[in-house]
Amino acid sequence: MTSERPLSPDGLPEPDGADVLADLAQLLAPQFVMADPDRMAAYRHDWSKGAGAGTPLAVVRPGTVEEVQAVVRWAAQRRIGIVPRGAGSGLSGGSLAVDGAITLSLDRMTRVEIDPAMRVAVVEPGALNITVKQAARELGLHYPPDPSSYEICSIGGNLATNAGGLCCVKYGVTTDYVLGLDVVLPDGTLVKLGGSTIKDVAGLSLLKLFVGSEGTLGVIVGGTLRLIPAPSPAATLVATFPSVAAAANAVVALGNRLRPSLVEFMDNYSINAVEDVREMGLDRDAAALLLVQCDSPGDARAAEVLVVEEICQVAGASEVFSTTDPDEGEMFLAARRSSLPALECKGSMLLEDVGVPVPRLPALLARIEEISLRHGLPIPVVAHAGDGNTHPNVIYDPAEPGALERAEAAFADVMAAAIELGGTITGEHGVGRLKKAALPAQLGPDVMDLSRRIKAAIDPLGIMNPGAVL
Amino acid sequence: MTSERPLSPDGLPEPDGADVLADLAQLLAPQFVMADPDRMAAYRHDWSKGAGAGTPLAVVRPGTVEEVQAVVRWAAQRRIGIVPRGAGSGLSGGSLAVDGAITLSLDRMTRVEIDPAMRVAVVEPGALNITVKQAARELGLHYPPDPSSYEICSIGGNLATNAGGLCCVKYGVTTDYVLGLDVVLPDGTLVKLGGSTIKDVAGLSLLKLFVGSEGTLGVIVGGTLRLIPAPSPAATLVATFPSVAAAANAVVALGNRLRPSLVEFMDNYSINAVEDVREMGLDRDAAALLLVQCDSPGDARAAEVLVVEEICQVAGASEVFSTTDPDEGEMFLAARRSSLPALECKGSMLLEDVGVPVPRLPALLARIEEISLRHGLPIPVVAHAGDGNTHPNVIYDPAEPGALERAEAAFADVMAAAIELGGTITGEHGVGRLKKAALPAQLGPDVMDLSRRIKAAIDPLGIMNPGAVL
Repeated sequence: MTSERPLSPDGLPEPDGADVLADLAQLLAPQFVMADPDRMAAYRHDWSKGAGAGTPLAVVRPGTVEEVQAVVRWAAQRRIGIVPRGAGSGLSGGSLAVDGAITLSLDRMTRVEIDPAMRVAVVEPGALNITVKQAARELGLHYPPDPSSYEICSIGGNLATNAGGLCCVKYGVTTDYVLGLDVVLPDGTLVKLGGSTIKDVAGLSLLKLFVGSEGTLGVIVGGTLRLIPAPSPAATLVATFPSVAAAANAVVALGNRLRPSLVEFMDNYSINAVEDVREMGLDRDAAALLLVQCDSPGDARAAEVLVVEEICQVAGASEVFSTTDPDEGEMFLAARRSSLPALECKGSMLLEDVGVPVPRLPALLARIEEISLRHGLPIPVVAHAGDGNTHPNVIYDPAEPGALERAEAAFADVMAAAIELGGTITGEHGVGRLKKAALPAQLGPDVMDLSRRIKAAIDPLGIMNPGAVL
Repeated sequence: MTSERPLSPDGLPEPDGADVLADLAQLLAPQFVMADPDRMAAYRHDWSKGAGAGTPLAVVRPGTVEEVQAVVRWAAQRRIGIVPRGAGSGLSGGSLAVDGAITLSLDRMTRVEIDPAMRVAVVEPGALNITVKQAARELGLHYPPDPSSYEICSIGGNLATNAGGLCCVKYGVTTDYVLGLDVVLPDGTLVKLGGSTIKDVAGLSLLKLFVGSEGTLGVIVGGTLRLIPAPSPAATLVATFPSVAAAANAVVALGNRLRPSLVEFMDNYSINAVEDVREMGLDRDAAALLLVQCDSPGDARAAEVLVVEEICQVAGASEVFSTTDPDEGEMFLAARRSSLPALECKGSMLLEDVGVPVPRLPALLARIEEISLRHGLPIPVVAHAGDGNTHPNVIYDPAEPGALERAEAAFADVMAAAIELGGTITGEHGVGRLKKAALPAQLGPDVMDLSRRIKAAIDPLGIMNPGAVL
């Protein structure tokens, strides 16, 4: 198993299917090693659009950290690429299968243990975000990060992408809740970074470097996540606006006055897409809608709702509605969360994730409207507006000649607009394979070079998630 | 200026004082280049105890980013070490002068600009923390991180050490507020990491890697810091306890029920040291004292104070006093902040900064009492207790033969106890030179090796803050 393999013309070893299976079947139970195309199919794709999936050499589903280490060591010896994979709900192609690489699925490692005394969740990477949340809630604790896909996305994927969500505007993103990580390095070594101490500045912040590294530096095989006492129930406020600009201006004004626990935006196209799938009573004529929640305790919540109402009205809202009924609030949130699947009913879609500093949100939304007109394609926008993180979605008809090319041009233009406005090509989904080409325009050659040096220092053979991010 | 210099026996070039001055005086105005021992004296030390300061080749005080780049480039060409320095208030020896190295003081780069629309502070590294806070406050905004030394410590030092403070228990530490960093790399290249976008996951988290890197990876020459709306005024609660354990148990119970904005601890020795310097009316007989603040808005604050009172009483508090008068509250905080200078009046002192997961705080405090008894030296403790971050201070009489050795042994024992309890040798001060020897015991050989590989990838010549941390 340690012999060197013959090298292909590009310097990588020529893999041999039969050998691979025989080797891997010695490392973990044979039923968890797959090389049959039909069985591998379910592990090749993620939810990203516009980036092709390759054919892996094999898919392995280790059940323990030791099995992950064995697979990584085996691959390192042969210079075979490894694509780590959680629940496959990624939107940037970070876990798309790569020709000739091993897809390492962590979907069997799903343990979640809550330690209420330590106020931490100790998790395996394949556990779903919702499972962590529910386990914490049963003990009166709360794990805030809440990607819209929280019911189906894995916590390992959340860690690998530094996932965000709706609550970030008040509660921060995944990295803010990571106290410890267990990582299998590209040579198979297991390292434990951090622990369960809240304040810890001993040595370089390697923990934070691995969060959001999208599988390019190692395999995250465990995490210790900080939990907080459950927040008070939120009041929910829905405001409709006669223009996108008015809603965007309200978002900027909100951020200057208070910290709501949620500030979401939907434009007219998105509202109608949701209503088309399931009637929820949203105003189909509104140019834009803001969904705001406030969860301060006691009478502060009511005071905050009044401030939000006032700001929306000053910004020109057509209608403002608020409720303290949690079920009613959750219904509006469900409408917002369902917007991406609803938009997918309208045609093929390129899903964006650009962000800008909050005061530049009105400018970004205006630029997106202009890009939409110029390319003759709808680009409906939903947004975690309070953070300046938007999801413009380029919708096109794949049957129409040239439509995909126009959609891709619009997609690139949206990213360029975000960069021009001092923003980012990805606020929470990650770069993956989908946005790799656009990364240098944001970071510039010196930061790209620095990133590559760090990647090379940790993964000198370049086997970790080859072709992703860098 | 680009010629290679002769190498010393250890492979480093033999510096020549006269050449150095002539060279450096071409890079920045001569009055900001110092090689005279008397003038350099003020830049050799920091506030750490127990680690010696070397004699620098020169001290330079650049006024611009370009001057920093020029100095770094010059040093890199000659493989001369660079010790970056902020206000010199560090407690771990991170900016102690090194024989034959350049001390690069950032004390002339002090600009602070608040952008209220963007809700950020754009800072130069030499600005004091208090200057940033005050500038933000004038515009109704707030920069939370608050080391006890906030009136005299630089924001660049805060960034370099990922500084904490009293508010962290609710508001987090420095890294949580950094949106952008300008860094001069060890070859003189200026890179801009992040920006002013709140959510940004494009590429590796280099920003977070540089925060807390203690000058070992580059020179931080600018930062963009996130500001938040000013919190509501805090209510302050003081509780005294008949035993350290009772106070520690109250801290653990508090964390399970609510998120106070401050939870500080002082033991009997510390209380008396403060009272000896200035009578503040603290109970000299109390075994321990907790200082708690709650700053939730509206009537929630009063409700929180009631919960804190109840928890303290259940834990066995002798007396609980609360006030909503901000001046009175600030007086108690001033007492807490003055405890380190007050303790320094009691003898020579080794200042600790160990942390543990909060539920292990009672065990840590018990271990410290045991270590104090065993070595026959007082180890008074003040603590940011809500985060499990403690400052045990080993006090000794330097005139007494063998006392320093016993103090150092006690200091090492405290760190070992923290590590055994799953904690850290430094919660907020950094490793610097003072704790370098203890770092491998906490991180282990694999994480040390990984750290060194990253250091070597960014600083292959090893010129950045030589001898610190790694």
